[in-house]
Amino acid sequence: MQPWPDHRLLDVLKLEIPIIQAPMAGSDSVALARSVSSTGALGSLACALLAADQVREAVRALRQRMSRPFNLNFFCHTMETPDSIAIQKWKSFLRPHYERFGLDIESVAETRLRRPFDEEMCAVVEDVGPEVVSFHFGLPNKDLLERVKRRGIKILSSATTVSEAKWLESHGCDAIIAQGFEAGGHRGMFLETNIATQLGLFALLPQVRDAVSVPVIAAGGIADARGIVAALALGASGVQLGTAYLFCPEANVSPLYRRALAHAAEKGTAITNLFSGRPARGILNRYLQESGPMSDVAPPFPYAATLVAPLRAASERAGSLDYMQLWAGEAAGLAQSMPADQFTRKLAAEALSELYKAST
Amino acid sequence: MQPWPDHRLLDVLKLEIPIIQAPMAGSDSVALARSVSSTGALGSLACALLAADQVREAVRALRQRMSRPFNLNFFCHTMETPDSIAIQKWKSFLRPHYERFGLDIESVAETRLRRPFDEEMCAVVEDVGPEVVSFHFGLPNKDLLERVKRRGIKILSSATTVSEAKWLESHGCDAIIAQGFEAGGHRGMFLETNIATQLGLFALLPQVRDAVSVPVIAAGGIADARGIVAALALGASGVQLGTAYLFCPEANVSPLYRRALAHAAEKGTAITNLFSGRPARGILNRYLQESGPMSDVAPPFPYAATLVAPLRAASERAGSLDYMQLWAGEAAGLAQSMPADQFTRKLAAEALSELYKAST
Repeated sequence: MQPWPDHRLLDVLKLEIPIIQAPMAGSDSVALARSVSSTGALGSLACALLAADQVREAVRALRQRMSRPFNLNFFCHTMETPDSIAIQKWKSFLRPHYERFGLDIESVAETRLRRPFDEEMCAVVEDVGPEVVSFHFGLPNKDLLERVKRRGIKILSSATTVSEAKWLESHGCDAIIAQGFEAGGHRGMFLETNIATQLGLFALLPQVRDAVSVPVIAAGGIADARGIVAALALGASGVQLGTAYLFCPEANVSPLYRRALAHAAEKGTAITNLFSGRPARGILNRYLQESGPMSDVAPPFPYAATLVAPLRAASERAGSLDYMQLWAGEAAGLAQSMPADQFTRKLAAEALSELYKAST
Repeated sequence: MQPWPDHRLLDVLKLEIPIIQAPMAGSDSVALARSVSSTGALGSLACALLAADQVREAVRALRQRMSRPFNLNFFCHTMETPDSIAIQKWKSFLRPHYERFGLDIESVAETRLRRPFDEEMCAVVEDVGPEVVSFHFGLPNKDLLERVKRRGIKILSSATTVSEAKWLESHGCDAIIAQGFEAGGHRGMFLETNIATQLGLFALLPQVRDAVSVPVIAAGGIADARGIVAALALGASGVQLGTAYLFCPEANVSPLYRRALAHAAEKGTAITNLFSGRPARGILNRYLQESGPMSDVAPPFPYAATLVAPLRAASERAGSLDYMQLWAGEAAGLAQSMPADQFTRKLAAEALSELYKAST
């Protein structure tokens, strides 16, 4: 096999294949990350919904007979508790939706909220020492970041604009994920707040590449080898795929969600803040069509999620996609279903063969 | 010079270089199209704002000592005259903006509206016989289309979804422009109405390529040779660049607009219906920030333009970008300023050198 023409990301992260399986809180799994990392690409595990002990346990499982690098991913938002007026507005907005399922919005249990990277998680990270840590929504405070870096861990984070990319480089990122508008799940935006000006990968990637000197990882809209070759042409040193890995059997994806993914291309995807309070891309369903996809009524991230959780659960119990949180990117229509290690090796082989085709 | 690896578009349109200068009503020019076509790429002239005689005159000028193919572009919307309630709502919405300039919204002159391709234009096209005609917003009715095709003219149109691409192929397009979300100016959407689900080029292009058998032209977010190489990797047989050509001296771009383009990357661009009634991407300014970028109040295309014209003119007279219609795509930050023929040859040479780099 020919070598990858751009070695920068491989060298920084100690990889054989410049492909990262995107962390996907709630949908990734130890099995998925293990399978990807075992090929020499980079598997990731999202930790925003995990407790400290669960992270320790997951890393233990990742390391069993697997010595390749893997990535732990953390959110680093601030928790801005909404006031009671905001919650009342959100309740009034959601009440008609609750009524469809005969649910009582006044008796909603606490839900597990996405937590930011903190002192406790930092101690876990120092202890278990993943080779790579990626952050979403910027970076944690300087002290925490320094502790992670001092442990020799490489730091990634996502930029959705050139300004964010420059900021991440100047704050110590070892490589930057250029997250195109096409990407599924939460937009990593942290300096920019306007989704109307968010950039497609075609325009974002070369502008980020020109603006920073650390390696750039392309994310959003990539689900096959063509996308990898295109991303490298636009200046990426590697790629991150999320949605494509949701089609692998190792992903933690319910049968209904899996069926929705198979039809994501026809349904379309849109960016919505109606699930968590922050913009994230998911498959268009009744909830997004009727009430969004964006709404000023959603309380701040991550608190919107608490009152949406019963709707999501009731919808799934009823076998309906209407209120399910169906994160997916725009390239779902290109994905194939096969074991994650096989998929990763296939992507790499096809991309390399295309890259060297001109020479034959 | 090495040959282009994919010859399909070159063969269909009789080109030497698979680059199309996008038609840009109001901003393109005969000089621009001539300069591009003279290289063996395809220059385009938007005719939506031109009268029949102006089109004849433009073609005469294009043909002077230039025998290469060129493209005439037409819109093919239906004119849905808004009712008086819609106009009153639009006036109420615009009145505070008028007041900023001391303008009277009750004494607005008629403005030249973008006209759809019709019987009269069809006769002109049959008469002057451009090698290529491209349509925006679908295709004209069957009779008109047949007349153009019978003349031996090749037909292009833009698709923003896979469904639109399939429709265009089945209705006789010789090649299809996959218009990514990144593109400046009007979105060509004609079956789809929801801009929230519009796709970035990275995701759209390979899905369109897989769905149709005619050659696919990539548009949106491309402004340098890297974008061309990436588009070819994703399955395009050619590319269409608009914004990048606005930086050429031949483009009909006012000094203020030119200055705005130079800062488009920092300002950001957004899709707005506030100028014409249809979604189109332009540089973010005060008008879009305060009142949009999208609004339900805008009357149907193209009628919104009449009442916005005085605001645009007053803004430009005052040396202010606040109300100017600054169409631009997301890759403005990558563009360079040089004569259009030189720019086209540079793009082609750099793309070819990159395509054959792996072999050295």
